[in-house]
Amino acid sequence: MNDVARAAGVSSATVSYVLSGKRPVAEGTRRTVESAVAELGFSLNPVARSLRTGRSVMVALIVPDIANPFYALLARSLQDELRGRGYHVVVCNTEARRDEEQALLREAMHQRFAGVVMTPFRLSTTAFDALRGAGIPVVVSADIAFGAVDHVAPDAEDAVRQALRHVADSGRRRLGVVAGPRDATGGDPRLERIRTHAAAVGLQVEEEAVVHGEHTRAAGAEGFRRLMLSRHRPEAVLCVNDVTAVGAMEMADQLGLDIPGDVALVGHDDVDFATLVRPRLTTIRYPAREVGRVAARLLLEQIDGRTQPHTARVSAEFVPRASA
Amino acid sequence: MNDVARAAGVSSATVSYVLSGKRPVAEGTRRTVESAVAELGFSLNPVARSLRTGRSVMVALIVPDIANPFYALLARSLQDELRGRGYHVVVCNTEARRDEEQALLREAMHQRFAGVVMTPFRLSTTAFDALRGAGIPVVVSADIAFGAVDHVAPDAEDAVRQALRHVADSGRRRLGVVAGPRDATGGDPRLERIRTHAAAVGLQVEEEAVVHGEHTRAAGAEGFRRLMLSRHRPEAVLCVNDVTAVGAMEMADQLGLDIPGDVALVGHDDVDFATLVRPRLTTIRYPAREVGRVAARLLLEQIDGRTQPHTARVSAEFVPRASA
Repeated sequence: MNDVARAAGVSSATVSYVLSGKRPVAEGTRRTVESAVAELGFSLNPVARSLRTGRSVMVALIVPDIANPFYALLARSLQDELRGRGYHVVVCNTEARRDEEQALLREAMHQRFAGVVMTPFRLSTTAFDALRGAGIPVVVSADIAFGAVDHVAPDAEDAVRQALRHVADSGRRRLGVVAGPRDATGGDPRLERIRTHAAAVGLQVEEEAVVHGEHTRAAGAEGFRRLMLSRHRPEAVLCVNDVTAVGAMEMADQLGLDIPGDVALVGHDDVDFATLVRPRLTTIRYPAREVGRVAARLLLEQIDGRTQPHTARVSAEFVPRASA
Repeated sequence: MNDVARAAGVSSATVSYVLSGKRPVAEGTRRTVESAVAELGFSLNPVARSLRTGRSVMVALIVPDIANPFYALLARSLQDELRGRGYHVVVCNTEARRDEEQALLREAMHQRFAGVVMTPFRLSTTAFDALRGAGIPVVVSADIAFGAVDHVAPDAEDAVRQALRHVADSGRRRLGVVAGPRDATGGDPRLERIRTHAAAVGLQVEEEAVVHGEHTRAAGAEGFRRLMLSRHRPEAVLCVNDVTAVGAMEMADQLGLDIPGDVALVGHDDVDFATLVRPRLTTIRYPAREVGRVAARLLLEQIDGRTQPHTARVSAEFVPRASA
């Protein structure tokens, strides 16, 4: 800035006023400063600019695990959408742990990030109040709402109904569910949707046919094993996501069970590898790219001044393949 | 800062000196300021601190595509390693495009990132000189070096030799390669390694049996198709990574070719889905988690003051499964 001031023969403060537009500067002076800036290839130190405007160009994406392909694609999509506006995506993993979720929110506030896009698992629904109070835009991508913040939610009723009808039509009656963790905030909305629609198509979901665990491959394998070794073995199993479904597939292999011959299997998400496994995974598609696009749009609207919280729905879709 | 100064009855400058340790302050004054700081729960605005120290806590990970599971796991690993030191990982995708690679490096410099970890594809080998000049630590993860910067490189000679011997031992002679792009900086070291070791075990790699393309599923499918429709169809195909190998598998399905009956297939990386596809993918394992760990270590060494560039090697390993 001093170089520019010297070249233009004005004070640093004048240069600052021209660049920030905060105070009026005489037309001639402004032109002189602008040519000096152009000549010197001067660009404002972004850290200095952040300090002046109080705005960072960093947007935190806080998810359980970026190595889960659903979140990797969400990250990709978010970055593609925000890049044109000059924002960067900072990726943070929580492993769905409440202490990490809280620590990362504190960090996001401390760093004064430009915004937060998050899939929380165990946070309280008031956890975003402090960020909101600090004026940091928040978008939650989850099945349930977390207080008065922007929310990208699945519109999945039709897709789940279709999936269950498809299972019932293949003559299965006893349905098992590899569900999410018991202590997730708001319970397990995916499980609740399944319960709601199962009865309507004549499927039974016994209490003992629901197993809970994390959204991981290992938990999927273990949950599926318990279901397969239970007294009334389910004839079809729905998994909370595709990662757990793939764990279930590997366990079926180990147990010598044929999918879909011995047991039908349905996933959730439709990640890349759903078409790579054999049999190809029947699943309820929740499009990560579209979720990223919508989250970016909601975030930018807030950055541009919208303050009223908004909920956007992204449609899920039943995708029948070979596993059910 | 003004509140602290008022509470301690000293000037803002004195508070600043105590906090930054930049100038000596009388013992008594220092204590008074420190108790005022403790009492007011004052924490330095990180943006202000960045400005003062000239250091950001953001580390850029610049890769072709975070949705490629190799890079997703690398990102996860890098974040796990850097989190304890207070650094955040900013994920940037280039699609292996030179203009994006250059733009993101400029941006990293402009933002004064704490460091850059990058897998470049089409940059010139002098592209990092400016970042180095600006004192921003760089770690390149690639098969070739990019000038005098830290470098995580595969130690893959043994693994490739073993893979080729394995293929030769199964009685195949004609080898095809689905290679990387023709115009990547430094050519295609993976292809060169294959050529070097193929002759030693009696495998032939004809010029027409090498196809070039991006490291994507679509390019893998297209490259494999061309090989399978060529006059002297290869009996075994090596792919530049697992993503292209999976594209090849899907094309084999479409063409009605059996793997490994009609053609053996070997990948590279050993990403998550290599054990999910059927047949399970035989591959040359390059451990993404370990690459992330080593890159983090090199980066932190630079942040802590090391200035001499260093190269670290990570061992690749041949993993025979069902596809070859």
